[in-house]
Amino acid sequence: MKVIIVGANGAVGQTAVDALSDRHEVIKVGRSSGDVQMDIEDIDSIRAMYQQVGKVDAVVSAVGHGHFGGVAEMTTEQFMKGINHKVLPQVNLVLEGFDYINDGGSFTLTSGVLNRDPISGGSCAAAANGALDGFVVGAAVDMPRGIRINAVSPEVLEVSREKYDGFFRGHVHVSSEDVGLAYSKAVEGCLSGQVFIVD
Amino acid sequence: MKVIIVGANGAVGQTAVDALSDRHEVIKVGRSSGDVQMDIEDIDSIRAMYQQVGKVDAVVSAVGHGHFGGVAEMTTEQFMKGINHKVLPQVNLVLEGFDYINDGGSFTLTSGVLNRDPISGGSCAAAANGALDGFVVGAAVDMPRGIRINAVSPEVLEVSREKYDGFFRGHVHVSSEDVGLAYSKAVEGCLSGQVFIVD
Repeated sequence: MKVIIVGANGAVGQTAVDALSDRHEVIKVGRSSGDVQMDIEDIDSIRAMYQQVGKVDAVVSAVGHGHFGGVAEMTTEQFMKGINHKVLPQVNLVLEGFDYINDGGSFTLTSGVLNRDPISGGSCAAAANGALDGFVVGAAVDMPRGIRINAVSPEVLEVSREKYDGFFRGHVHVSSEDVGLAYSKAVEGCLSGQVFIVD
Repeated sequence: MKVIIVGANGAVGQTAVDALSDRHEVIKVGRSSGDVQMDIEDIDSIRAMYQQVGKVDAVVSAVGHGHFGGVAEMTTEQFMKGINHKVLPQVNLVLEGFDYINDGGSFTLTSGVLNRDPISGGSCAAAANGALDGFVVGAAVDMPRGIRINAVSPEVLEVSREKYDGFFRGHVHVSSEDVGLAYSKAVEGCLSGQVFIVD
């Protein structure tokens, strides 16, 4: 299969690269790294990426960030960061991808743990994760030509323990290998409309 | 208790009015009906509503709509309708409400069935519902002064059967009384960070 992995250079995206590279032609996409450069927040850049890469069998997205901070002090602009920087970029990757994804192909998005196991300051991210989880459930039933769509929702990765030190006290940290298995199932399996939780 | 019910004139909001009016002072808020008029999509109008009503013990929101249509033909603007017309208005009601809600008060938002039991054309609404469900889970842990936040996620109401005729084939239709019980639990109960499913 020919597989686009957006955010391939991040800790999460790297798990998908490692899980899939041996068996498939992986095209790594990043803002400034990888095989193809793309600004995921710019829909024209998404279109240009697809035009450059051409037809593919799977699109994996492991990108996005939001606002962290208490809800009582949150502004509407801060709330929207999760929508604009995590939800909409990944949804646009799907909406713009139909002309490029082969019959029976798949889209795999990435949400996260915070809408099932919240931490202080995480309501913006929790809303973004919930939107992505909801989107794949809703979109799966409308996919044409046998195309599938799923989300991977990982706990904090062991390799990111230092980066998020102190924010996720008591949370289990998952191995990159286990997260990679979820992307493998999403890309190489047969399910659709699923949120693959890695806890 | 003094309870604001936004969207009181709608089929869903009416269930909250019916469930709570006997025991509480209910202020019905609507775009053109009710005790106080407000445009939920205009943050200045939300602020003006709170200034007019003053301190309250509970805020219930039963408003919002999205785009219905197949995901393969959906534009980014259409996808954002669920965010802009359902998610953000309800979230803004929370973000702007902290100066007006009493200690131990509650916010109750309304999502819906489509992110757990999808129908064709419902991916925009499913994403919006997921965002709202995720938001209450994430926000609950950050609420100051004992304030609670929950969502009610009802199946299609029996009273709306005709309005949505043909779109929800095979879905159970729930009674207005059962939906009202969920709002009662959210406002008069003790739980927080919950999505009260009415199926």
